[in-house]
Parts: sequence; C-alpha cells; structure tokens
Amino acid sequence: MNTISKSSALVLFAHGARDAQWSEPFRAVRQAVATRRPDLTVELAFLELMQPALGDCVAQLVKDGHTRITVAPLFLAQGGHLKKELPRLLKDLSARHGAAEITVLPPIGEVTELLDAISTWLVDSAPR
Amino acid sequence: MNTISKSSALVLFAHGARDAQWSEPFRAVRQAVATRRPDLTVELAFLELMQPALGDCVAQLVKDGHTRITVAPLFLAQGGHLKKELPRLLKDLSARHGAAEITVLPPIGEVTELLDAISTWLVDSAPR
Repeated sequence: MNTISKSSALVLFAHGARDAQWSEPFRAVRQAVATRRPDLTVELAFLELMQPALGDCVAQLVKDGHTRITVAPLFLAQGGHLKKELPRLLKDLSARHGAAEITVLPPIGEVTELLDAISTWLVDSAPR
Repeated sequence: MNTISKSSALVLFAHGARDAQWSEPFRAVRQAVATRRPDLTVELAFLELMQPALGDCVAQLVKDGHTRITVAPLFLAQGGHLKKELPRLLKDLSARHGAAEITVLPPIGEVTELLDAISTWLVDSAPR
C-alpha cells in the first residue's frame, strides 16, 4: 500500500486463478498505470483464488484515507461475475464505507477502443 | 460456416459462460476481423459452457477444406486453461487432423501492445 497521502485510488479487479503466473499481465498493467498516474494509488484485487479480495483491498484503501475509489473490472466480458457478484460486493462496500465514493468503470469488453485494438491485433497477426 | 472456399481459418477461442450475453464482445471482434480479412474464415469457439467447442469448430473447418488453422486464445492471462487444457486439446486436434497445420497465437495478456492499450485506457479513464 502506498504511503504517500492520496485521496483517489484505482482498483484493478481481476478474476484470479490457481496459477500464480496468471496475475502477471495484471501486475504489469498496474505498474504501468501507477507510473503514469502518480496522483492515484493503484491496486490490484481479485474475485477469487488470489489475494487481496476486493473487499479487503477497499477496506485498506479507506483506512489509509482514500475517499474516491474507482473499480476497473479487468474482464473481457460480462457474465455472472460482473452482473451479480460485483454489484453485491459493491453494495456491501458502500454500506461498510459510506464516506468513500466508489465508482465502477466498464469492463474491457464494453470499451470500443479496446475491442478495436484486439481486432486490429488479430487482423495483423493471423497468417496471410 | 462460410461457404466461399478459403484455405486459412482463424478461430477465436474464448472461455464461455452461462450468460448468453457474455459472448457479445467476442462476436463483435469476430465480425470486425472477418470484415477486414476476407481471405480468412473467422470462427468463434469456446472452452466450456458455450457452443461450438474448439474440437467441433476445428473438425468442421477441416471438413470444409481449411488446411491452415490459427487459434487465437482470447484470454487476458495464462492459467490452467491455456497451460494445460488448450495444449491437450491441440494435441488431440493435431492427431485427428494430421493434414491441417494448426498454430496458436499468444493470449491477449502476452501481447505488449494490447496491455499498453489497456493501461492507456485506464490512465485516461480513472477520475482526476
């Protein structure tokens, strides 16, 4: 957790997996964003199988004085995890941390420019 | 399945989910790539919970005369699904369809330019 006082935080929320290496791309993204947004505390949290859980991460951020927390779901698409489990987690977090403003960004698969980037990469990478 | 004779195919391989809407971003990517690569048959296949399965998709492509098949795993990171299950599936496909050349692209989370696109989107999207 960052020791410099920042009021805003970005939590990259990923699924989690049994294989520790699975988290590497998310850690790389976290590092890249943290470097380019020194005004933000940038953390990584997981739905399951990896630590910290989203709830523990947000609790720590609030404890450290963050009042604006943005959750970015790093998921390619929206299924039960984002439609059911995340809203439940967020409702619980809002109830527990009423003083913090918690907002959510769309998942990767709902962002046109990211789908375009994936499509362009595939167009360029498939053998001709 | 495309009725025009093409020898090369690209299979977008996604996890699958119970929620039918989950597949929408992948269908959008498939459509975008198919439009921009008319030389390729572009299909979508799933690991579980959705149809077609990768094996059925590849079998149909081979039956339709495709001799070069590229599998693109649309996964953000590599865990057991890509390290264990996909190699097993590919080994089985190669054994069943010896005449077809089957290759695999890296998953999204191993592609620097896609991680950069995700990072940049987060840098621009997190509130200031």
